[in-house]
Amino acid sequence: MTPKALFFDVFGTLVDWRTSIARETERLLAPLGLKLDWLDFASAWRREYQPALEEVRAGRIPFSKLDVLHRYNLERILPRFEVRGVPEPVLADLNLAWHRLDAWPDVSAGLVRLKKKFWIAPVSNGNISLMVDLARKNSFPWDAILGAEVAGDYKPKPRVYLASCQAFDLPPAECVMVAAHSSDLAAAAACGLRTAHIARPDEAGPGKGEAAPKTTVDLAANSIEHLADQLGA
Amino acid sequence: MTPKALFFDVFGTLVDWRTSIARETERLLAPLGLKLDWLDFASAWRREYQPALEEVRAGRIPFSKLDVLHRYNLERILPRFEVRGVPEPVLADLNLAWHRLDAWPDVSAGLVRLKKKFWIAPVSNGNISLMVDLARKNSFPWDAILGAEVAGDYKPKPRVYLASCQAFDLPPAECVMVAAHSSDLAAAAACGLRTAHIARPDEAGPGKGEAAPKTTVDLAANSIEHLADQLGA
Repeated sequence: MTPKALFFDVFGTLVDWRTSIARETERLLAPLGLKLDWLDFASAWRREYQPALEEVRAGRIPFSKLDVLHRYNLERILPRFEVRGVPEPVLADLNLAWHRLDAWPDVSAGLVRLKKKFWIAPVSNGNISLMVDLARKNSFPWDAILGAEVAGDYKPKPRVYLASCQAFDLPPAECVMVAAHSSDLAAAAACGLRTAHIARPDEAGPGKGEAAPKTTVDLAANSIEHLADQLGA
Repeated sequence: MTPKALFFDVFGTLVDWRTSIARETERLLAPLGLKLDWLDFASAWRREYQPALEEVRAGRIPFSKLDVLHRYNLERILPRFEVRGVPEPVLADLNLAWHRLDAWPDVSAGLVRLKKKFWIAPVSNGNISLMVDLARKNSFPWDAILGAEVAGDYKPKPRVYLASCQAFDLPPAECVMVAAHSSDLAAAAACGLRTAHIARPDEAGPGKGEAAPKTTVDLAANSIEHLADQLGA
């Protein structure tokens, strides 16, 4: 395998959404006197993610940035946690919690190594501004921001992977999709991309993540640094 | 003026297309025994640029990446210089000369300073892969690659400027278009963006560039470092 570009899933693969969202939610809602199970709130918000994307993928609503879908999902779950009357500026700020997620500790150093040998870009369902905020916060040295907003649809639709290859003028076989989720990798492989699985066994809570790929992959690593080792970067 | 993002024109504003294209053309064609006025060839190739973009802007041909239009333009000018029989791999490589342009000496350091205070992106008519190659060659630390390929049309169509603001979730008034060409700045201003002119008096040959803006602008500088000075970066 001699790839030219590496495409990265972001939520779960590069950043720890669960504890970051719990922390940000507590930071913004606790001062209002609210006491929730913050980790449970993070998981509930995330559970609305795929159903909302599916509305776009199925063509029932036009393409909307993930920030818009996150806000819609937030409005859906707040009543379930009996949260009402939060001022609009706090809600708007809370929705941007997804722009402030922390990277897993191996990511920044691994990406710096990989960039010396490959073109690197996020191919995430997150919107461009969200990707820029995460890159600035966590020192992700992207060559470009690709993914859902550039493609106008959401993974795992083939268009998102193929539009990313086309943006870099590369055939799919020279591109590697890197993700902690086998469904993402299976969809990329079906488009002709190579695949690398990153184990994030605790992504959605202790033991609630993929410790190993559930689909055939070209590479399996337990961190981005480990991936760089395997790719000789 | 307190902008949040700076958008940069690239050809002429950040990179010296004329001497770089002359050098690359000589490097690739001289070994075939060809002797041309290399600077004249560079200028002739560039003169085909706006007419080709206009085909897309006017809707006479679908959006095509600039690499495709550069190749079309190359085929048009080769016979004028009585160049025939160049092997296809050499032509393909020559077309990518636009990916290997040198930055003006003030650019890399200026962008590094500006990035500390603002989001920065190219808003060029060049395609994404061309922008990545120029960034890697010249150490341009972009937050994202925006511009024609993301917008699906060519400057100075309003869509290109407005799509760039939208990608960063910013109103036009919080974005500054930075360019060495008054026509680009006038179009951006008509969309509500702020504008900064960079003097490149020798862009198209000695004295054949804009030494000063020919339209009303918010800022005028003689280099990217000078722009950083003026913006307190």
